[in-house]
Amino acid sequence: MITVLRLGHRPGRDRRVTTHVALTARAFGADAVLVSTKDPRLERTVRDVVRRFGGSFRVETGVPWRRVLRDWAGTTVQLTMYGMELDESLPRISTDDVLVVVGAEKVPGDVYRLVDANVAVGNQPHSEVAALAVFLDRLLGGAALHREFGGRLRIRPGSKGRTLESGR
Amino acid sequence: MITVLRLGHRPGRDRRVTTHVALTARAFGADAVLVSTKDPRLERTVRDVVRRFGGSFRVETGVPWRRVLRDWAGTTVQLTMYGMELDESLPRISTDDVLVVVGAEKVPGDVYRLVDANVAVGNQPHSEVAALAVFLDRLLGGAALHREFGGRLRIRPGSKGRTLESGR
Repeated sequence: MITVLRLGHRPGRDRRVTTHVALTARAFGADAVLVSTKDPRLERTVRDVVRRFGGSFRVETGVPWRRVLRDWAGTTVQLTMYGMELDESLPRISTDDVLVVVGAEKVPGDVYRLVDANVAVGNQPHSEVAALAVFLDRLLGGAALHREFGGRLRIRPGSKGRTLESGR
Repeated sequence: MITVLRLGHRPGRDRRVTTHVALTARAFGADAVLVSTKDPRLERTVRDVVRRFGGSFRVETGVPWRRVLRDWAGTTVQLTMYGMELDESLPRISTDDVLVVVGAEKVPGDVYRLVDANVAVGNQPHSEVAALAVFLDRLLGGAALHREFGGRLRIRPGSKGRTLESGR
């Protein structure tokens, strides 16, 4: 079980990037995304993809994130450019029941202490979407990209665009 | 030499995601990003990161992208959910002089034919930022994350946030 927790989401300004975070979580093997701020439109967008492309990925917005973080039974990891090196950290992270925290631009200072590990996907500024994708890809050994989602819509590799198959 | 070509950029709507594309390109080992539409503000944002964090990453906006694509001396690769499987495609892609094309939501149909290869980082909808990050990470064997940028600002791994070191 892998859950992603998105902090600092502002519905107007961040919806597009948070949608990227949610769809990246799904495509790279996470089971759910929790978003700090209530955003019904974001929920609809993500559920619509799940409905069409399959799988059982869940989205929940407006979660009491500090409580979620504090009460998490498994491991909690924040992805941050200020964290420990990815290569060093990965062997110590189990995929059993992990909560992966990704912030928007600013993250409250206590998050760094509330999580079990702060992990840096490189110590350069880039993107929480990129950090999440590479973290999950490395954590699951690249296996997630080969998963079958069993959705109504499926892309046939090499189709040169626009061709969707009805899976069932 | 790795160059990223960002298509379909609309300065108002796409600036934030294109900024993520550009910074991801830099952090994961590309040398430059070319953006289809002129956007001085985007250029400033990217150059500001380069100035502070180091390296020689270049950004250029308002490029004649069809000509760039047609006249490219090396290999051209489009990242698209409709492409061939990443694992299958990677061994055939050289890092010598590659142009990596990432679109915004819709990409003109002729791009699929203009490139040497269409590569899918998974056949599920997610994010061009995620696709670019994982593609570069896999292409360079994870080496890019260990690169020294030699910038004025450097993050000390494990610093738990907010601590920046002056590199020189």
